[in-house]
Amino acid sequence: MIRHVVMFNWTPEATAEQVEQVVTELGKLPARIGAIKAYAFGPDAGFAQGNFDFAVTADFDDEAGYVSYRDHPDHREIVQRLIAPIMAERSAVQFEVTGP
Amino acid sequence: MIRHVVMFNWTPEATAEQVEQVVTELGKLPARIGAIKAYAFGPDAGFAQGNFDFAVTADFDDEAGYVSYRDHPDHREIVQRLIAPIMAERSAVQFEVTGP
Repeated sequence: MIRHVVMFNWTPEATAEQVEQVVTELGKLPARIGAIKAYAFGPDAGFAQGNFDFAVTADFDDEAGYVSYRDHPDHREIVQRLIAPIMAERSAVQFEVTGP
Repeated sequence: MIRHVVMFNWTPEATAEQVEQVVTELGKLPARIGAIKAYAFGPDAGFAQGNFDFAVTADFDDEAGYVSYRDHPDHREIVQRLIAPIMAERSAVQFEVTGP
């Protein structure tokens, strides 16, 4: 299994409404993109200073599943319309999950 | 449920053996820290340029579970002895996972 992890820092100008829209639209993706086996995301809970603002984790059977998510038009649309305009920083990893 | 996500970039001097040691020692933590409900980690798979080098995801029932992991001596020992010496960059988020 491949786990895709991505974190965002938002711009200082990003509003709560803009972030809420990201949450709402991301929530629609698992029903639309069959390759998604598990999907979780949310704003940082505020336990630690210096954290990023938001994270997404997404599980796929394999690299092809990840790529089909990455390139899916419904995903691209959210990235371009809602995320890119408020994104200050992004960091990502895809890693192979083994074991239970 | 709280999902803790952390990514690292290693220093240019970090060796494969040092990273392998991190993998080996992290793998022992779920058996030692009861608060860990799920634990996955690994080096970046190389699908994308500009990714971080390594990620860890860890699930806990609540903030107290996360804190008991964060502060657990076996975890701190790995961070201080194996991760800190090869760490160039770190980014983290803890977020509330809702739904299935």
